[in-house]
Amino acid sequence: MTVTKNYSLVLQKINELSFEDRPEPVIVHDTDVIVQILLTGICGSDVHFYTHGRIGDFVVKKPFILGHESAGIVTKVGSEVTRVKVGDRICLEPGTPCHVCSLCLGGQYNHCAKMHFAAAPPVDGTLTKYFKISETFCYKLPDNISVDEGALMEPLSVAVHAVKQAEIKPGSSVVVFGAGPVGLLVAAVAKNAYGAALTVIVDINKERLAFAKENFGVETYLSVKGMTAKEAGNDLMEVFNLSIERGFEFAMDATGVPYCIQSALYTLRPRGSFVQIGMGADNADLPISTICFRELNVKGSFRYNGRDFEQAVGLVARGVVDVKNLISSKVDFAQAKDAFELVRQGKGLKTLISGPE
Amino acid sequence: MTVTKNYSLVLQKINELSFEDRPEPVIVHDTDVIVQILLTGICGSDVHFYTHGRIGDFVVKKPFILGHESAGIVTKVGSEVTRVKVGDRICLEPGTPCHVCSLCLGGQYNHCAKMHFAAAPPVDGTLTKYFKISETFCYKLPDNISVDEGALMEPLSVAVHAVKQAEIKPGSSVVVFGAGPVGLLVAAVAKNAYGAALTVIVDINKERLAFAKENFGVETYLSVKGMTAKEAGNDLMEVFNLSIERGFEFAMDATGVPYCIQSALYTLRPRGSFVQIGMGADNADLPISTICFRELNVKGSFRYNGRDFEQAVGLVARGVVDVKNLISSKVDFAQAKDAFELVRQGKGLKTLISGPE
Amino acid sequence: MTVTKNYSLVLQKINELSFEDRPEPVIVHDTDVIVQILLTGICGSDVHFYTHGRIGDFVVKKPFILGHESAGIVTKVGSEVTRVKVGDRICLEPGTPCHVCSLCLGGQYNHCAKMHFAAAPPVDGTLTKYFKISETFCYKLPDNISVDEGALMEPLSVAVHAVKQAEIKPGSSVVVFGAGPVGLLVAAVAKNAYGAALTVIVDINKERLAFAKENFGVETYLSVKGMTAKEAGNDLMEVFNLSIERGFEFAMDATGVPYCIQSALYTLRPRGSFVQIGMGADNADLPISTICFRELNVKGSFRYNGRDFEQAVGLVARGVVDVKNLISSKVDFAQAKDAFELVRQGKGLKTLISGPE
Amino acid sequence: MTVTKNYSLVLQKINELSFEDRPEPVIVHDTDVIVQILLTGICGSDVHFYTHGRIGDFVVKKPFILGHESAGIVTKVGSEVTRVKVGDRICLEPGTPCHVCSLCLGGQYNHCAKMHFAAAPPVDGTLTKYFKISETFCYKLPDNISVDEGALMEPLSVAVHAVKQAEIKPGSSVVVFGAGPVGLLVAAVAKNAYGAALTVIVDINKERLAFAKENFGVETYLSVKGMTAKEAGNDLMEVFNLSIERGFEFAMDATGVPYCIQSALYTLRPRGSFVQIGMGADNADLPISTICFRELNVKGSFRYNGRDFEQAVGLVARGVVDVKNLISSKVDFAQAKDAFELVRQGKGLKTLISGPE
Repeated sequence: MTVTKNYSLVLQKINELSFEDRPEPVIVHDTDVIVQILLTGICGSDVHFYTHGRIGDFVVKKPFILGHESAGIVTKVGSEVTRVKVGDRICLEPGTPCHVCSLCLGGQYNHCAKMHFAAAPPVDGTLTKYFKISETFCYKLPDNISVDEGALMEPLSVAVHAVKQAEIKPGSSVVVFGAGPVGLLVAAVAKNAYGAALTVIVDINKERLAFAKENFGVETYLSVKGMTAKEAGNDLMEVFNLSIERGFEFAMDATGVPYCIQSALYTLRPRGSFVQIGMGADNADLPISTICFRELNVKGSFRYNGRDFEQAVGLVARGVVDVKNLISSKVDFAQAKDAFELVRQGKGLKTLISGPE
Repeated sequence: MTVTKNYSLVLQKINELSFEDRPEPVIVHDTDVIVQILLTGICGSDVHFYTHGRIGDFVVKKPFILGHESAGIVTKVGSEVTRVKVGDRICLEPGTPCHVCSLCLGGQYNHCAKMHFAAAPPVDGTLTKYFKISETFCYKLPDNISVDEGALMEPLSVAVHAVKQAEIKPGSSVVVFGAGPVGLLVAAVAKNAYGAALTVIVDINKERLAFAKENFGVETYLSVKGMTAKEAGNDLMEVFNLSIERGFEFAMDATGVPYCIQSALYTLRPRGSFVQIGMGADNADLPISTICFRELNVKGSFRYNGRDFEQAVGLVARGVVDVKNLISSKVDFAQAKDAFELVRQGKGLKTLISGPE
Repeated sequence: MTVTKNYSLVLQKINELSFEDRPEPVIVHDTDVIVQILLTGICGSDVHFYTHGRIGDFVVKKPFILGHESAGIVTKVGSEVTRVKVGDRICLEPGTPCHVCSLCLGGQYNHCAKMHFAAAPPVDGTLTKYFKISETFCYKLPDNISVDEGALMEPLSVAVHAVKQAEIKPGSSVVVFGAGPVGLLVAAVAKNAYGAALTVIVDINKERLAFAKENFGVETYLSVKGMTAKEAGNDLMEVFNLSIERGFEFAMDATGVPYCIQSALYTLRPRGSFVQIGMGADNADLPISTICFRELNVKGSFRYNGRDFEQAVGLVARGVVDVKNLISSKVDFAQAKDAFELVRQGKGLKTLISGPE
Repeated sequence: MTVTKNYSLVLQKINELSFEDRPEPVIVHDTDVIVQILLTGICGSDVHFYTHGRIGDFVVKKPFILGHESAGIVTKVGSEVTRVKVGDRICLEPGTPCHVCSLCLGGQYNHCAKMHFAAAPPVDGTLTKYFKISETFCYKLPDNISVDEGALMEPLSVAVHAVKQAEIKPGSSVVVFGAGPVGLLVAAVAKNAYGAALTVIVDINKERLAFAKENFGVETYLSVKGMTAKEAGNDLMEVFNLSIERGFEFAMDATGVPYCIQSALYTLRPRGSFVQIGMGADNADLPISTICFRELNVKGSFRYNGRDFEQAVGLVARGVVDVKNLISSKVDFAQAKDAFELVRQGKGLKTLISGPE
């Protein structure tokens, strides 16, 4: 690869990625920071744009740069920047809200209608050499967090936010559907950071469950064919010696698959909470009478806000959650296209792409 | 009708009601109270047992007495009863929990697995002359509440509980689907007791909407054919000058109809709350991606607990909610069968049956 | 008074006010708004700076302009302003936070350490002709709210915030200590907007209590000499037929006087909440064992944030809270010094000063 | 000691303990359980009754049996008991509420006005051979919990309840005043069960701090003379690299000493929470202006309710909190008087008394 000023990975249209040299960003506001991107994780949403050209209302109408799970090194700072300095290793919170709408002022900036989010078209992402961001959304990595781990702070923040949405309580029982990166991190946060007494992860893939057990010490449940969702929910309770009165207090879905969501709801005790994390089906047929009878609490979790990133960095720095083992491969920027193909085929857990040299 | 000791309205099996003379209840525990039932409202659930023989897991397997929305007069009290005395006019909270399971001890007795609830088969209901109940679940009617109003404290408690589940805040905007008794009471409680700034009630029936506007002063929206649920939700926002950012904060469903539930969810702003009250479809196809993106909070409301009855009585006593106009007819006990037929045909808003003389 | 460009009321030092011509503010940021101040209420804090030269850590070290309870008319707007336009009548939220610290991002901007608050020295206030503010903190007055009422939106927002801190629930019982402007507004918001079933206001001044009863329909309790705080608390419960089990659920103090705070705590039932609003004594001897035994919740309320101003404007626009009667006098800008003298002497409830012509 | 049927340790009056043979309890209700007490911890309240004859409104007016931190073995059960069986090792929740007042029905039974609590005069305690209790308040000890540990479930439940009152969040910073048994358990629960990122324990006794660090891995701060409470609070923040904006989120007091409570309040960031656990001074001079400016949340914690005991047992069973090291000595029942003398002199951390043989 010829080294250029600001080499970037651009999604031209569905199934077409290309490398482009984009203008290098410059400091405009006194609180701007320029970051040289060192590593970027490939997210399911990146792949979805690549393969489908849209997610919900976000539609790819013109070429844009992918990537938003990144860590890097500060190369330039505006005159009023105080949180980081040139040379600092940081991770990036990839969205910038307006700060002044009623949602922002109320502490819910993840819902800001003017949110400018990396790799949500048409906004360019972080699979580029230099990226500009406000210091507000730079989080310095402590010495004991590597840049590799830094690139995982974004999915870990997603998990932290989901667990906070659920309001998981110490000593409670939690079931997580889906043993992909987000599901694993949710289970790890629930168990190790929020003190869940019983954390069960559910998947159809034995290898992923074995990985979950070995790396995060959680209980596992293999989802098998031939049961209705209600039967699956009841079986899950039975396997872990629970009844409806003593059912799971929290169920989290990181699959987006209706059958999983349904099963999850049937596992819950009265007043239990369910949180939907994984984007998936637009609609799902849900047992509304069970929601009503048991007074369940069905919530969504969307990105992160407030102190989620800070908390994510703290969890790794204090050794509470270990994210390193999620990294299944690291490739050079020049191999980025191949990496997308492999992730599209479901290979590996989390693939990181090095920044352009 | 021949006056008997304890004449009762018994559901023998689907579509077969009969009058029976049942044994008169006697004081066993020191806190028992015997109430002569003066008025009982017919609830949708009574009619559903009459016509379908079951609701969820409650199945009519043997004859049982219907009715649970009642007011009456105390005729005997156990030796330790202090809350009421003979001659007091009272309304009844019709369920008795175990008091000692973890749900009861935690203040969620409406979910007690050992709940003994009037007219939930096989437990006998209140369409009888004398009914026994613990003093704990007797609420004395203040002088300015009539027995007619007293018979409406049960559905009003359902409404109070639903509004508490939603955590409706003063100054907020609320949309209620369904202008039947419960929907109307939910709207009245939201507007008059919880200070909603905008309360909209939705129905397909113009007369019910006109009734709602005239009697409770709420805004109305006529649901029409030909729109998708999403279009209906968006239209509702538009009609009331709302956008997604400023959408409804609370949506309540008292219909149990999937199309209504779906529409309700689409009207909500980020972090908005939906509460399902009306029993209806077992399952509903819900926009799970909207729940996720907007971080909606979907909850159920089941019966009542704690101080809901007390609060209901207070609302009527202070003139905050007027329930009298909901009463569309009052019939003698001897006409009870006809009354059930009329309610089954959807005639009238709330029919009350006098106790046997 | 000679008409000048930007005539202002400046506190030179303790007990010394003067009129000064200050530079007229100019648009710098695209979201700046220039407001011609039409009316400003005198706040207890303005008078305290005038008479004592400090409040807590805010010390008058150099001359600054007083005033922060203002309404006015928009005269100029920056190029990106969309919320208001020239000619709009508005009220002002007088503080500007940094928007990006963790407290701001978390929705608690009233605690922003970089808060720039009008008339909190050394920041200049609004007793001036033209005042510059970001559009974010301009609230357009609906047609049915007068500018007089607009000048009372700031103290009403203080009351709204306090009631929200207390989490006052419909149907509950509330006692408010102090029948000054803030105490009266707190009582009115608790009763009319938050549906308190019993709202009692306590003062040592019979006229103020009569005013409260007549204008806001609340119950009153005359505080008399000769009782301990505990006796006063118990007497308050007794007078309103309450016991400890059924004591007040909420107590609010708008006096800052230790005896009142103590009495307030003794009136509360188990799990009751107390909120301190009025600045007063730095320290107070509190019954910590009662706080512990009854698991009381003692909180503070400081200014306002988020949607408090919006809610205040809505309450007046919908006729829920009537603020007009609080205005005891309106004086010309030229009489501002005399007005401060009268307020210092405790004359009148709320004095408004017209903006310089 | 002569073996008798139901030997008990009776407080006759201040400073006078004696052994008495009391009637053996018999099953009356179908849910009654008779427990042979095997071990009872001496609580500060037991000693306080012994030395002062009263705590708050609880006054020793006639002889009564002390003790309420107990574990034992089930010897008889009523006909409907299902939670435990003869031979089970259990710990006891020592209070029985009425179950039917509004506080009980609302899940706040620790405030029940009819609470019947062991060793709260005139109710007899557990320093006896056989003790009768409802099965509702028996908690079976899992095989991996010893009876010694079982006797510590009561103080651990106090700690669990306090941490729940504070609503301590994972990743937060917590300071605990007092390194006695309750303070140590609060710190352990905050750190190990609730995931506090920084847990600091404060005491004036170096040995206790060293013990805390060694056994529970918490940070320590030695309280020294010569600082005001405000200086101490600020120093605590400084030592742990905190500022007001980033101050402690939670402060817990297990001393009851006004200076500690004051210091604790000064360590808190805006919106921080303080919980009073230790009974001590009736009144304390508190910085009410700081509570107001920072919108602090000052709460009390009184005993326990709902699922606190269950959670306590779970924490020890899962190895999250280790309580064994708190036991400083175990003595025979015959030595009970001497044990009280030693505890009165402040010797040892937690002394257990074996049940009469």
